[in-house]
Amino acid sequence: MENFSEWYHNILETAGIYDLRYPLKGCGVYLPYGFKIRRYAFEAIRDMLDESNHDEALFPMLIPEDLLAKEGEHIKGFEEEVYWVTHGGTTPLDVKLALRPTSETPIYHMMKLWIKVHTDLPIKIYQIVNSFRYETKHTRPLIRLREIMTFKEAHTAHSTSEEAEAQVQTALNIYKTFFDRMGVPTIVSQRPEWDKFPGADYTMAFDTIFPDGKTMQIGTVHNLGQHFAKTFELEFETPDGGKDYAYQTCYGISDRIIASIIALHGDEKGLILPPEVAPHQIIIIPLLFKGKEEIAMNKAKEIYKSLKNTYRVKLDDRDIRPGKKFNDWELKGAPIRIELGPRDIENNKLTIYRRDTGEKFQIDEDNLLNELNTLIDSIENTIKEKAEQKVKSFITILDNHDVNNIKETLSTKKGVVLVPYDENIYTEEFEEEIDASVLGTTEYDGKKYISIAKTY
Amino acid sequence: MENFSEWYHNILETAGIYDLRYPLKGCGVYLPYGFKIRRYAFEAIRDMLDESNHDEALFPMLIPEDLLAKEGEHIKGFEEEVYWVTHGGTTPLDVKLALRPTSETPIYHMMKLWIKVHTDLPIKIYQIVNSFRYETKHTRPLIRLREIMTFKEAHTAHSTSEEAEAQVQTALNIYKTFFDRMGVPTIVSQRPEWDKFPGADYTMAFDTIFPDGKTMQIGTVHNLGQHFAKTFELEFETPDGGKDYAYQTCYGISDRIIASIIALHGDEKGLILPPEVAPHQIIIIPLLFKGKEEIAMNKAKEIYKSLKNTYRVKLDDRDIRPGKKFNDWELKGAPIRIELGPRDIENNKLTIYRRDTGEKFQIDEDNLLNELNTLIDSIENTIKEKAEQKVKSFITILDNHDVNNIKETLSTKKGVVLVPYDENIYTEEFEEEIDASVLGTTEYDGKKYISIAKTY
Repeated sequence: MENFSEWYHNILETAGIYDLRYPLKGCGVYLPYGFKIRRYAFEAIRDMLDESNHDEALFPMLIPEDLLAKEGEHIKGFEEEVYWVTHGGTTPLDVKLALRPTSETPIYHMMKLWIKVHTDLPIKIYQIVNSFRYETKHTRPLIRLREIMTFKEAHTAHSTSEEAEAQVQTALNIYKTFFDRMGVPTIVSQRPEWDKFPGADYTMAFDTIFPDGKTMQIGTVHNLGQHFAKTFELEFETPDGGKDYAYQTCYGISDRIIASIIALHGDEKGLILPPEVAPHQIIIIPLLFKGKEEIAMNKAKEIYKSLKNTYRVKLDDRDIRPGKKFNDWELKGAPIRIELGPRDIENNKLTIYRRDTGEKFQIDEDNLLNELNTLIDSIENTIKEKAEQKVKSFITILDNHDVNNIKETLSTKKGVVLVPYDENIYTEEFEEEIDASVLGTTEYDGKKYISIAKTY
Repeated sequence: MENFSEWYHNILETAGIYDLRYPLKGCGVYLPYGFKIRRYAFEAIRDMLDESNHDEALFPMLIPEDLLAKEGEHIKGFEEEVYWVTHGGTTPLDVKLALRPTSETPIYHMMKLWIKVHTDLPIKIYQIVNSFRYETKHTRPLIRLREIMTFKEAHTAHSTSEEAEAQVQTALNIYKTFFDRMGVPTIVSQRPEWDKFPGADYTMAFDTIFPDGKTMQIGTVHNLGQHFAKTFELEFETPDGGKDYAYQTCYGISDRIIASIIALHGDEKGLILPPEVAPHQIIIIPLLFKGKEEIAMNKAKEIYKSLKNTYRVKLDDRDIRPGKKFNDWELKGAPIRIELGPRDIENNKLTIYRRDTGEKFQIDEDNLLNELNTLIDSIENTIKEKAEQKVKSFITILDNHDVNNIKETLSTKKGVVLVPYDENIYTEEFEEEIDASVLGTTEYDGKKYISIAKTY
């Protein structure tokens, strides 16, 4: 991919993912095909959260100014980025209302009403909502938006510090598994003090590396300690009759996972979608030779019916030439294509094309379901492995902290540079010197490093 | 239900549906149990729309002022109700941004980019989003909100007037089926000219009748003609090479369907949920007699496992007395309860309690799945029929237009009054005289009436 940025913008349009032409900076439209990818991706995380005893809920989008401002550090982290509603109709509002940049303040305000005694804990809730940042930086579709269309934020409260700490690990594991299912490799770093979430004790972050060698944060997990709990008075009666404040965590992912799926797997021909999120996992294309149209079409319908309860399958019966259909679905990243020609049908054969490797081969029709099962697994693994290789090739380990060396590596090899951890150089001044971002500290092959990159 | 309003507010809290205590008028929190009801209800309509060739998409929430104001009638209908964002951080915005009250303007602006020629049509899209009205009237949870948390809006564009008209019928049928599945009876009226959707040719509306005898609009279907299409220049090339503007429809439902499910089916004991939207369709409660706890608990787990792939089933193994559990799940409206006592288990029997009728009876364990199938159907039908009877008892047909008679009927019998259609009295003046709302014109038993009610 010579020019990733151009490729990325193009594919969003041509594959029908996201329309950038909405007349407002940083806002756009999820088109039907893109919406389906979003739906399947967020259904996956929803299932994982539900299975690990999280409850889905829905909180208001509008936050009164005094509520948002209640926690001093938190508001400082957001105040330049908050959109303010000041009028209802032509009437000025008594209290300005913020569009949620994130929902700690509304959720913790409500938690106070729900938490009285230790048996009210733990609370583990999440919501999938839009949220807003008045970005002054360059905006990018699904990456840096003013309306973040999809923000999955989870918030938990616990009766002990240990339990909150364990929840951080649980959340990290859920996200690891989720990103793995999406085939998106990540590096997990503990963010430096100067770059943690405003109000958190510490922040763990997942970064992936885009094809242009820049990293992108695609998930964060925060241990909030008792910081918010004290501000929002989340006090509860302990088992021994004493009082304590709740211990909290929160963690989030956004549209950026969709951007990553597109960016990390795609190629010059278009999207390559992991079967789990592909709107159509299998496309059936009858090859309509003159005089034998009916044979191919009937067989196509028969195959469609036999598969539709197991896979998301689409029969493309448009009246256009097959070559055009092939291109369309390669562009849109459908994992598997089944071609049905009259000759194949006579021999009880089907031609299979797999998008990720470009391989084309014949199988026996009788064995279709088995073959597809194996194929789906193989595609999932291959997509994931390729992405892992790409990302790995962007990771450079240096054995020293030489600033020029780091800068040189970032400019030539791009990606992430790992230097051995040393508390003396782990400072904001060092970050300024290297003119790049310190992602934080990370474990790699059992050793502790400082991770450095140019970021989105 | 002596005091419906009190009952309604209470049940939202005690059953864990919606928390009213958010510190902003007209805004509240969908609690986990309520959220699940919302989820299943909107999954049902989503499936119906997907099956009838609608595509789900997602449009921005922020609408620039000039875009919202583009259609004169439309903006007039909303201008006193629109929330305005005027600042990003501390920076005043160049162009004020509206929080969407509804999405005609953003969607039709985008449609212009998508429609060039008749083969680009029809377009049928929908989205499920939050939307906002600065209500100056008394707000009510899930009924009249300032943040409408759930607005399912569909928008279509067609190449002929006939096709748009047919789409109105399709939409009416989809909504009828949907409300029917929710067990919520409705009266369909064509709204009078003076009360149609701003910018529509005409508006069809679904009203239901609440237990206090007031009607509530829970769905609307609008034929927009070419009104918006001309403003937004949705011009396309016709098959004969000419030019025409698209013919449009739009239709919506909201959180009010959740309010209706709660209000129309509930009783003094709490919620009664149709199985389709019940978070847990079946509750299993082991009766733990001293020394025989293990037998009941093992049987409960066994039954749970045998049902969990077919139904949404919950094993309530909390360490509290069964009577408390019974009350909890009656309050929360779980359709079926299975009680497991040691005596029953010995005899291969199960005790079934159905929430809608209050009946309690024994069945053979061997026959459980069959019995449950039948029972679920029966519950669905019974809930629906009861609601239909309630609503029907609130409909009064008068054979004249006598104003005093109408007022008297509305004040004593409440509900909907139908008077024979007469174009001379079908006026805004008449509406003022009767001091109630003219819902519109409606067919009832094959005759055309004017429908009148006190509305929410």
